[in-house]
Amino acid sequence: MSGERPSKFGESFSEWFSWIIREAEIYDYGRYPVKGMGVWMPYGFQIRRRVIEIIRRLLDETGHEEILLPLLIPETLFKKESEHVRGFEAEVFWVTRAGLNELDVKLVLRPTSETALSYMESMWIKGYRQLPKKYYQIVSMFRYETKMTKPMIRVREVTMFKEAHTAHETFSDAERQVMEAVDIYRRFFDELGIPYLISKRPQWDKFAGAVYTIAFDTLLPDGRAMQIGTVHHLGQTFSSVFEVRIQRRDESLDFVWQTSYGISERVIASIIAFHSDERGLILMPKIAPIQVVVVPIPGRDEETTRRVREFAREVAKMVSDAGFRVRVDDREDMRPVEKYFYWELKGVPIRIEVGPRELGSGKVVVFRRDKLEKRQVELGNLAEFLRELARDIENTLRERAWSWFRERIKLATSLEEALKLAKEGCIVEIPWCGDERCLQRVVDEAEGIDVIGIPLPTIESREPPKDGSRCVVCGAQARWWARIGRKC
Amino acid sequence: MSGERPSKFGESFSEWFSWIIREAEIYDYGRYPVKGMGVWMPYGFQIRRRVIEIIRRLLDETGHEEILLPLLIPETLFKKESEHVRGFEAEVFWVTRAGLNELDVKLVLRPTSETALSYMESMWIKGYRQLPKKYYQIVSMFRYETKMTKPMIRVREVTMFKEAHTAHETFSDAERQVMEAVDIYRRFFDELGIPYLISKRPQWDKFAGAVYTIAFDTLLPDGRAMQIGTVHHLGQTFSSVFEVRIQRRDESLDFVWQTSYGISERVIASIIAFHSDERGLILMPKIAPIQVVVVPIPGRDEETTRRVREFAREVAKMVSDAGFRVRVDDREDMRPVEKYFYWELKGVPIRIEVGPRELGSGKVVVFRRDKLEKRQVELGNLAEFLRELARDIENTLRERAWSWFRERIKLATSLEEALKLAKEGCIVEIPWCGDERCLQRVVDEAEGIDVIGIPLPTIESREPPKDGSRCVVCGAQARWWARIGRKC
Repeated sequence: MSGERPSKFGESFSEWFSWIIREAEIYDYGRYPVKGMGVWMPYGFQIRRRVIEIIRRLLDETGHEEILLPLLIPETLFKKESEHVRGFEAEVFWVTRAGLNELDVKLVLRPTSETALSYMESMWIKGYRQLPKKYYQIVSMFRYETKMTKPMIRVREVTMFKEAHTAHETFSDAERQVMEAVDIYRRFFDELGIPYLISKRPQWDKFAGAVYTIAFDTLLPDGRAMQIGTVHHLGQTFSSVFEVRIQRRDESLDFVWQTSYGISERVIASIIAFHSDERGLILMPKIAPIQVVVVPIPGRDEETTRRVREFAREVAKMVSDAGFRVRVDDREDMRPVEKYFYWELKGVPIRIEVGPRELGSGKVVVFRRDKLEKRQVELGNLAEFLRELARDIENTLRERAWSWFRERIKLATSLEEALKLAKEGCIVEIPWCGDERCLQRVVDEAEGIDVIGIPLPTIESREPPKDGSRCVVCGAQARWWARIGRKC
Repeated sequence: MSGERPSKFGESFSEWFSWIIREAEIYDYGRYPVKGMGVWMPYGFQIRRRVIEIIRRLLDETGHEEILLPLLIPETLFKKESEHVRGFEAEVFWVTRAGLNELDVKLVLRPTSETALSYMESMWIKGYRQLPKKYYQIVSMFRYETKMTKPMIRVREVTMFKEAHTAHETFSDAERQVMEAVDIYRRFFDELGIPYLISKRPQWDKFAGAVYTIAFDTLLPDGRAMQIGTVHHLGQTFSSVFEVRIQRRDESLDFVWQTSYGISERVIASIIAFHSDERGLILMPKIAPIQVVVVPIPGRDEETTRRVREFAREVAKMVSDAGFRVRVDDREDMRPVEKYFYWELKGVPIRIEVGPRELGSGKVVVFRRDKLEKRQVELGNLAEFLRELARDIENTLRERAWSWFRERIKLATSLEEALKLAKEGCIVEIPWCGDERCLQRVVDEAEGIDVIGIPLPTIESREPPKDGSRCVVCGAQARWWARIGRKC
């Protein structure tokens, strides 16, 4: 451990984030000699693996099939849909040479796979009986970001891109799939205790090629909104260009209707940002590589120390038999308090302390990382106690995160108030006439403020603005809300 | 299902292989518009997922830590070790442009990660106490193959590259790690019933930068040897160039000693090549996406059919409760015999047939895919019977594969005989003087014949050639064996 700990909140957030991912050995960033690309360290990789297992389970359970498409997309395929290309061409990496040859057809490193998959689907999908088809893959994705890069949050190699792609018989089947995807992401973020708002992006901010885009946004400790998931209704944009043609129920021919949706390692950035305190990380037991660490406290003499160590191993065996991932920290060159700091920084949710006092007492001391509380527990009740505690830690972390988040979602009835709150780091909901030009004006006139989007009435139970409310931009009758804030 | 089934053996192997991976919906190859790159289909991906789980378990259990390095390696890093570059530069893909810019430093798509990792290790590893360090990653790897590409076997995007990299205090620690790696791969291939020979490659055929290379080779049905795993002692080649410097036990400074070892989706190609027959694939239960398929056989009237279907679901429930992955195939537009063909092609190891005769009989018919045998089984014994059967199928497949393989490993005491056998599709062991120039002569003079390598005495219990045996090339006293054959 080295250096001072910057504060997590406010403008030092980036510095704090770099500090924690380095010190907790999650992600080595800024030292690999390609800008915007980092290395997942063993401890971070274990967290990542468990997060991926959760999303895989949610997708597999809902009939999604995992596949793997090539990384490289030929220019000819990539450029086939013009709107899509315009959205991406300024930010893709190009392979132009192979071995000693210049390539005839240049290859793009996938920035997303709508084009590659639609091309394959034109051969795979022939009739409505095969529909719906729901594919996904978890891969590295590449974008040549021109904004300032940030570890996990804005990188040039997104290493944990889960992209799903579906095909349907009708527009409304695809729309129902959009809702299913939103529901899956909601459950995913809920399992991980990551708070979010769900918004429909304004037209100018939708995915290149989509009919509309729905986004999940969370809020970082510096008061900036971060997109953590998007769901796109693609209409027939790609299926018509790539000729993914089916015979429909009524025997007519049509192109399929598609959706796509994605998440990335920003999920893990969010976990770190929310579930941590001044001592370091706090992991939910379900994703913790080590759920329980047992620390033996040496005695005054060797014999006592030897017995304590033996007892520590027995306790660890009980904990392991109860189904927990456990580690005994019996390093000899470290004092117990140093071990406490070490594992607190790494976010191990539960610590058991075993010292001379515990020998023969039938009790151990259990420490919970989230509330920093200690408690004596009878060995006979330990398994049950830990199971209950694990659940309680998850609930505590989830509630703590949501409570911080909810306080920062504000309503404002004037533009001036809204901008003031947004600059203070809130997401602000404003009464709005329904005309996107009003939102565009906010973006144009208020430096650093963005439109997050429009709350989705079918998703969030939300009342329309009261009669007589006025759009904070044009003053016309307000029909709905819009959300603004600073984006990361 | 379409077209004629080519024979698996002999020169039609490639055609057969393309047929089976397409028809069993494993890997879509030859249609994606980049040469040497294919698409893993859902069914194939499920097999792949389970194979990866096995290697992960074996590596995790032996103290290997999973990490993830960037795909892109800057030219400056890649070119730092000259022997390595010479080995790879004719076959790497280059990223030269990003967005609208030409890159100042070109980037290589990883052909392997010794350079990238050694660079990071120079920052991570400082003293002998941290050693040994064993890292691995499972990633896509890229080689611009100039030989004819073949699905899974010789591709330009190797999508299941498991590369391990280790660091040690001494040469012999690294050598012990080579042996551990060989042992891990041996267990891996044994679990999957893939036969192999272990050979030390001749110096001219070792990994670019290695002190020596040990390889696992299997034999394809066309009589060509295929490399399925390699283990390299890297000495200090990379650690000295990248300055991975440690303080040793005696306080002196030294570079670490490294090894690396890899496998790829050729593992899956081998499974397909060995475990299959004229009806299609035969999967070991441990890697089968569906282990048991239940096929209901309709009755003469609707009521009987309804009862059969209900019974089929009850049976499936029992099978699932016994811990198997089970599917009821109740498609209405297919006859039972078509379903049999369909699931036999896909390699589902166990089928249960449930028809009107089984109603109320307390029995079902169980079919095993490997031996094409049927048997009546009492429902009360079903769970136990299936567990026993699953074990027996694995043993049968393993023994069948090894028996075919062993018949094709021959000894020859003259070069003429050796070449004849090698051309017939055998791997041939010849008495050899120990001078690699003799082996080089075989390669130079016999068209299409390669040196596989030298059997490892520490690994395979093998007698040296008898006294008086002569090197089949130069006629000098033979000291050991060498293996020759055709390579794929």
